[in-house]
Amino acid sequence: MRIEEIGGEFSLIRQLAALIPHDHKNLVAGIGDDTAVIRQDHDTRRYLLVTADTLVEGNHFKTNWSTPEQIGEKAVECNVSDIAAMGGSPTLLFISLVVPKDIHVEWINGLYKGISAACKRYAVVIGGGDTTRGQNIIIGMSLLGYVRTTALCLRSHGRPGDLLVVSGTLGAAAAGYELLMKNTPVPPYLLKKHLTPRCRMDIVPMVSRLANAMIDISDGLAAEVNHICSQSRTGAIVFEDHLPLHPELFSAAGILGLSPEGIALTGGEDLELLFSIPEKNMDELRQSGIEHHVVGKLTETKEGVLLEQKNGRRTPLLGGYNHFTPVAG
Amino acid sequence: MRIEEIGGEFSLIRQLAALIPHDHKNLVAGIGDDTAVIRQDHDTRRYLLVTADTLVEGNHFKTNWSTPEQIGEKAVECNVSDIAAMGGSPTLLFISLVVPKDIHVEWINGLYKGISAACKRYAVVIGGGDTTRGQNIIIGMSLLGYVRTTALCLRSHGRPGDLLVVSGTLGAAAAGYELLMKNTPVPPYLLKKHLTPRCRMDIVPMVSRLANAMIDISDGLAAEVNHICSQSRTGAIVFEDHLPLHPELFSAAGILGLSPEGIALTGGEDLELLFSIPEKNMDELRQSGIEHHVVGKLTETKEGVLLEQKNGRRTPLLGGYNHFTPVAG
Repeated sequence: MRIEEIGGEFSLIRQLAALIPHDHKNLVAGIGDDTAVIRQDHDTRRYLLVTADTLVEGNHFKTNWSTPEQIGEKAVECNVSDIAAMGGSPTLLFISLVVPKDIHVEWINGLYKGISAACKRYAVVIGGGDTTRGQNIIIGMSLLGYVRTTALCLRSHGRPGDLLVVSGTLGAAAAGYELLMKNTPVPPYLLKKHLTPRCRMDIVPMVSRLANAMIDISDGLAAEVNHICSQSRTGAIVFEDHLPLHPELFSAAGILGLSPEGIALTGGEDLELLFSIPEKNMDELRQSGIEHHVVGKLTETKEGVLLEQKNGRRTPLLGGYNHFTPVAG
Repeated sequence: MRIEEIGGEFSLIRQLAALIPHDHKNLVAGIGDDTAVIRQDHDTRRYLLVTADTLVEGNHFKTNWSTPEQIGEKAVECNVSDIAAMGGSPTLLFISLVVPKDIHVEWINGLYKGISAACKRYAVVIGGGDTTRGQNIIIGMSLLGYVRTTALCLRSHGRPGDLLVVSGTLGAAAAGYELLMKNTPVPPYLLKKHLTPRCRMDIVPMVSRLANAMIDISDGLAAEVNHICSQSRTGAIVFEDHLPLHPELFSAAGILGLSPEGIALTGGEDLELLFSIPEKNMDELRQSGIEHHVVGKLTETKEGVLLEQKNGRRTPLLGGYNHFTPVAG
């Protein structure tokens, strides 16, 4: 049976989770979050964080679109984003690189320069790495970090009544990717969001104090809202006309034959944050000057996870980036 | 320029290390060891350990030689072996799986069954995982563990005068691999050492107390002795006629047109341990009943790293598994 036939990657993960030992007294969060949260025996103030991400040539990046420096930076940004979404700070990075036998050393050097530049941005140090031969380039990274126990934001921390807030525009990275796939000129903001995204570590110290649940939007808003709802055991409503859309998304959507809202709901890899926040904390968020867009709110489980379309119709909020559906290219 | 032209993987790692931030006050050991050793602010009795390994289809395993269960078990054993070599115990495993779009879910389930079986053997719990699409199967793993500060065995802990000891026969896994490559029947011990190796966690509690430097033999004895010497700033002498060779290695060497000693010195992935141990601790090691073979000793740096051949001639101890030389297949 193929992965699509059982319902895609998320169904697969659920199926595999039943096969393996995944309960541990010190595991505050494991499978189900992008980042594991580990209680430490002798440090009650902080949790250890571990996240791992893999970028595959042709799937997550193409060497004719991006310089090796850009690819290295983006790989680090994606991993730091997972630590940021927990309210934490990254510390040590481990790199597992698979490269073809005939790769140019200059390309690998460029990749490491990009990795290094992004690491310096977040005071991350390389703890180790290995390089293996394979058919195409695969960049595997594991990143450690820490989070103050009081700042931890899990997917499961959402409460009915919380507002759903995103930290910036949605769908730009996916639109940039799809335009590149079509060999069409890509407007500058969309290109930047796809090739050189920056994670939102800048707002984490403030937001992690005010938010309940938090997640980075790597699989598209619709999927991430569903992740929060299933882990928090809540419903949600997202308002289509509240989605923050960059002006460039409209022309891109026209070229792609898609709706801008559809791209915003299902396009991944923007590296923006989605968080749920109690109404009482909204004043402080507004006063902080941090860009934010209220896109919906969490509701009781029985309400379901809904999208309110512009015409007022409510439908189930479906979709999201799936590594095994054609959307991923 | 290609990786071979600059002297292979180890030269590449040295070159890359210069590009990246890799010093951190809490990093007891990082690049240069297979496993990073991290000081913890609030726990002076234990260090955190992190290791990462990647297995590539066609390079480290072939799906027509091994069942998915065997591949899963071996992947875990290789990672646990890196933690064992530090004198530590593993705790949490993170899995990054790359699979082709049309892979059978049954194969992935088999892989996870094997992973699960090996994890249970060492009380390892799965902390997270992700699955991505790629051209061929890549199994990336990151494993956390802990080591008592007093039990830590680093590559750099060797001292001139220490005896060099290995925990079992050498070259069997590599011989099994090479015979499979030739489509030749493989004797049972060689096949077992290649397809279903077990790491030597069983002897770690005793050996880590007695040894100075320790390393697992994943790149072949010659390379591992050189790793210890370069990190410990010592020389070494290895005696060709002390190499522990399984009887099956002799017939295999005949078929392969190689010397059994050559295979033992350069063949990787046996998952046996190499350690340096002060003479005064040898009585206790002998009394423990643990299988062990003295293959040489550490000397002063100026003596160099030498092999004493059976005929008494001394030559530099060269070689070892290199992921970018034809030996790796």
